[in-house]
Amino acid sequence: MEIRAATDEDWAQIWPFLREIVAAGETYTWPRDVTEEQARGMWMPTPPARTVVAVDRDTVVGTAKLGPNHLGPASHIANASFMVHPDHGGRGVGRALGTHVLELARADGYRAMQFNAVVATNTAAVALWRSLGFEVIATLPEGFEHATRGFVGLHIMYRKL
Amino acid sequence: MEIRAATDEDWAQIWPFLREIVAAGETYTWPRDVTEEQARGMWMPTPPARTVVAVDRDTVVGTAKLGPNHLGPASHIANASFMVHPDHGGRGVGRALGTHVLELARADGYRAMQFNAVVATNTAAVALWRSLGFEVIATLPEGFEHATRGFVGLHIMYRKL
Repeated sequence: MEIRAATDEDWAQIWPFLREIVAAGETYTWPRDVTEEQARGMWMPTPPARTVVAVDRDTVVGTAKLGPNHLGPASHIANASFMVHPDHGGRGVGRALGTHVLELARADGYRAMQFNAVVATNTAAVALWRSLGFEVIATLPEGFEHATRGFVGLHIMYRKL
Repeated sequence: MEIRAATDEDWAQIWPFLREIVAAGETYTWPRDVTEEQARGMWMPTPPARTVVAVDRDTVVGTAKLGPNHLGPASHIANASFMVHPDHGGRGVGRALGTHVLELARADGYRAMQFNAVVATNTAAVALWRSLGFEVIATLPEGFEHATRGFVGLHIMYRKL
């Protein structure tokens, strides 16, 4: 598996599983009926933000984006988002992407990384981020309306770099 | 003083003090050299977000914007931002805007309100939001590079509606 910068050509492989993940309404704070144009704009941002893909034998098995969480005087804290192709879960793709993006963020000069919206019921993600040094610094009670579980907590997670 | 929906015509009065506040680099996580076009796009968003102005005898003395803090399954938590014209501070404009925006948010069906970035040294703002029922749910250490004080904390504040 290789992790590299995403190209315009990768989008055709990203969009189907990104759409599936967002439509499920279990982990992402995006409109469940997001259009391809909206999704592309949000997932393939302009510099200094950047997008990477994890590729296994020409198949995009996961993707992540990295950028400043705020602008101006708070632009030294990064934000990142991750999606693993559901057909390729449980094989360390998320961990590999997380480790890679933490290294990218340090190289880009960020001083910390913050996740604004980790769904509390997404226990695999919460456990992964904890194992990579993040902690839950706050939980918004009933912050996320889960497709099947109703209102659940939404974690804000953070770590220094 | 009247608080009402902002119109396109109000922008000419908003922009000079908004630019001044952002350029000072003490309270806002926007680029200090924000252009008028960027600023207008960020401060005058499209529905369901909305912008209001506080007007005193035809002078815009303050402004606020209200919208969802996230999208999709987390769009029931509001975010809001406030700016008071520096020439009209200390006269209750911020409190009046805050009270008004909390009412608007309830009317719009939001279940809670979250501020993502309240600069810890902006003690007047922190005290105002506390008095209006918000609490600091997390502080990002050194989350904001203040123009004169260096790296200071950045609060996340929250209240149910």
